[in-house]
Amino acid sequence: MLILGIDPGSVKCGYGIIEHCNDSIKIIHYGLIKPKVSDSFFFLNKLKSIYDEIDSLLVEYRIGETAVESQFYSKNPQSLMKLTQAKTVVEIAAINRGIPVFEYTPREIKLSVTGRGNASKQSVKFMIENICATKLKDEVLDVSDALAVALCHIYRKEKIGIKRNSPRNWREFIIMNPKRVLS
Amino acid sequence: MLILGIDPGSVKCGYGIIEHCNDSIKIIHYGLIKPKVSDSFFFLNKLKSIYDEIDSLLVEYRIGETAVESQFYSKNPQSLMKLTQAKTVVEIAAINRGIPVFEYTPREIKLSVTGRGNASKQSVKFMIENICATKLKDEVLDVSDALAVALCHIYRKEKIGIKRNSPRNWREFIIMNPKRVLS
Repeated sequence: MLILGIDPGSVKCGYGIIEHCNDSIKIIHYGLIKPKVSDSFFFLNKLKSIYDEIDSLLVEYRIGETAVESQFYSKNPQSLMKLTQAKTVVEIAAINRGIPVFEYTPREIKLSVTGRGNASKQSVKFMIENICATKLKDEVLDVSDALAVALCHIYRKEKIGIKRNSPRNWREFIIMNPKRVLS
Repeated sequence: MLILGIDPGSVKCGYGIIEHCNDSIKIIHYGLIKPKVSDSFFFLNKLKSIYDEIDSLLVEYRIGETAVESQFYSKNPQSLMKLTQAKTVVEIAAINRGIPVFEYTPREIKLSVTGRGNASKQSVKFMIENICATKLKDEVLDVSDALAVALCHIYRKEKIGIKRNSPRNWREFIIMNPKRVLS
């Protein structure tokens, strides 16, 4: 199954596609969505171009699941709002294609990839390169962050698969017990 | 032209459609989008149902322009984020259909409809009923707020039409000078 990890942002939106088949993890594609400078005057145009690019990725690579980094706090409410808008656009693009969306906090992602919740972006990149046995191109760190989100989702799924007896939250409970959810 | 005014919210999302033809203003339809209780567990399902309902309104009524109330501040960052998510979903639904979106702050809306920037929701409802010569059903006040957004947009457009010599901001400048915008 192909998993699309996204590190949303209105200026730079990183994405990474990882193939997860049995125990093998392979990077398929990664990149950065940068809305055009001409779009920067109207913020909505930026959001639209992010939507379109994510949508074409979902279709082109036949993505199975989407994992998104979610920020719940920022010192500046304006940046938090812009980030939220970019995240919402990415998520609605996936939902409109019927692809499940999973959210992970930056701490969860860092913890699952590096083993430390407060790891630096460089450490995350280093771990991604080691786990996937690939040298990432000299891209900005948003790309390795996006790959880390996808990886975090894979680890979480595996963990849920092993520890069937103890869900840690309601999301895991529902994944373990799909028949107990009333439609 | 039909104008869709929206007062976005994740729990209740009010909408109102006003027809503006020459000087006549007529309420065509209004209502409240309330995502199902079963959707409330997964917030993204809520957003999806808001998207779908707005999308069907845009198609059914062949909306020409959309006006959305935008909140830039809230004491609680979590509610601001949820509101931003609902607003983004509404806006992306319109943009995906190629319908222009205009944003107005609560103060701008109240000022243009009642003459006071800090008017109560009741005053807004009273003015809407008087301007449109209609008695609104016993709906919650989100509906009259949504109609007020549409009305505010109509007034703004009219004002721009009269004062052709002095744009107050870039948005007005672009509306006045469409040929000066590079594509």
